[in-house]
Amino acid sequence: MNALRNATHLSHMLISRQVKQGDTVIDATCGNGKDTLFLARLVGCSGRIMAFDIQQQALESTRALLNEEGCEEQLSLIHDNHANIKSYIQSGVSAGMFNLGYLPGGDHTTKTNPRDTVLAVNCLLEILNPGGVVTVVSYPGHTGGLEEYAALESSLMNLPQKCFEVLTANFINQANHPSQLLYITKLS
Amino acid sequence: MNALRNATHLSHMLISRQVKQGDTVIDATCGNGKDTLFLARLVGCSGRIMAFDIQQQALESTRALLNEEGCEEQLSLIHDNHANIKSYIQSGVSAGMFNLGYLPGGDHTTKTNPRDTVLAVNCLLEILNPGGVVTVVSYPGHTGGLEEYAALESSLMNLPQKCFEVLTANFINQANHPSQLLYITKLS
Repeated sequence: MNALRNATHLSHMLISRQVKQGDTVIDATCGNGKDTLFLARLVGCSGRIMAFDIQQQALESTRALLNEEGCEEQLSLIHDNHANIKSYIQSGVSAGMFNLGYLPGGDHTTKTNPRDTVLAVNCLLEILNPGGVVTVVSYPGHTGGLEEYAALESSLMNLPQKCFEVLTANFINQANHPSQLLYITKLS
Repeated sequence: MNALRNATHLSHMLISRQVKQGDTVIDATCGNGKDTLFLARLVGCSGRIMAFDIQQQALESTRALLNEEGCEEQLSLIHDNHANIKSYIQSGVSAGMFNLGYLPGGDHTTKTNPRDTVLAVNCLLEILNPGGVVTVVSYPGHTGGLEEYAALESSLMNLPQKCFEVLTANFINQANHPSQLLYITKLS
C-alpha cells in the first residue's frame, strides 16, 4: 500500500526524488532529528547536512539520534535561528526542509513564528541550486499555525512562476486539522 | 530538472507509483487519448484499459493514437457516459483517471458536468482494489469548472478517512487559473 499518509510522509517522498549522495542539504527545524536523519541517509557520508534549531534540547536529541544511526559524519548542528541561514551557507544547497511549530515533547510556547519562517524560507530559496526544492510542513491545529501558514502562503504565491514552482498539498478528509505541505522547486 | 509542472504531470507521477503491468485501469474521460496512452503503456499488453467518452470524435482520436503507438491490444473503448462505469466493470480496478472539461479542439459546450462527475468518481472508488487510486484534473478557468471542482471536493471530503485518503494539490503561483488535482487512494 503506497498511501501518502500525511504531509511529512509526502514531503519525504518528494525530497527523495531530488536529493542524492554527496548533496548539501538543510534541515531548518531539526526538532527531534527525524527529518535530519532522513536527509543524512539520502546525502550519505560524502554529503553534508546542516541542521538548525534555536533549542539546545533539539540539537542534543538530533545529535544522539544521528550518532545512534551512524550518520554523524555528515552532520553540522547549528544553534541559531533559521532566519540566519545565510550567515552559514551562501549557495550550493540541493534541498531544505521545515517542520513548523514546537518541539514535540518540549516547551509548546517556544515555536516557529511567521516572520522568521517567511524570512528563512525565502533565504533558503536564494541559496538553492537550480532544481533544488524546499518542503514546509505546517500544523493548522496549533495555536498560531493557521496564521503562520497564511503568511508563508501569501509570500510564496508571489514568487515568479518562471523561477519557482509552488505547490500546496492538503489531505481534505482527515479529522483534527491535518498537517499541510508547501513544496517549492527552484526552476532557474 | 524534476519539476512537477502541472496537475496532469503530477497525476502521471502519482499514477506511475501504483500501476503495474497486467493491471486493469480506467480512463474515464479519454479526450484525445493522452492519458489513455499513458495508462496503456503502464499496464502493457497483459493489462487492460477501459476508456470512456460520450463523444465519438474523442474515441476515434484515442483509437488512432493508441494504434499509432502499438497499444491497441489492451484497449477497450466505450461510447458512454462515465457515470455508467459500473455497467461495464464491477471490480478489480487498479486506477482511474479523470481529466475534466471539454475535448481539446472540440465543441466547448460538450463538457463534463458536476452531477455525472461526482457520480462517476464515486462509482470508480467503489470498484477500485484496495490500494487503488483515482486522479481528477480540473480546470477552474473553464466556465463551470470551479463549480464542478467544488461539488467534487465537497463529496470527497466526506469520505471516511479509514477507507480513503483524499489529497488536493494546487500550484499557487501560476497565472491564468492553473489546473487542480484531486488524488484519492482507497485504503481498504
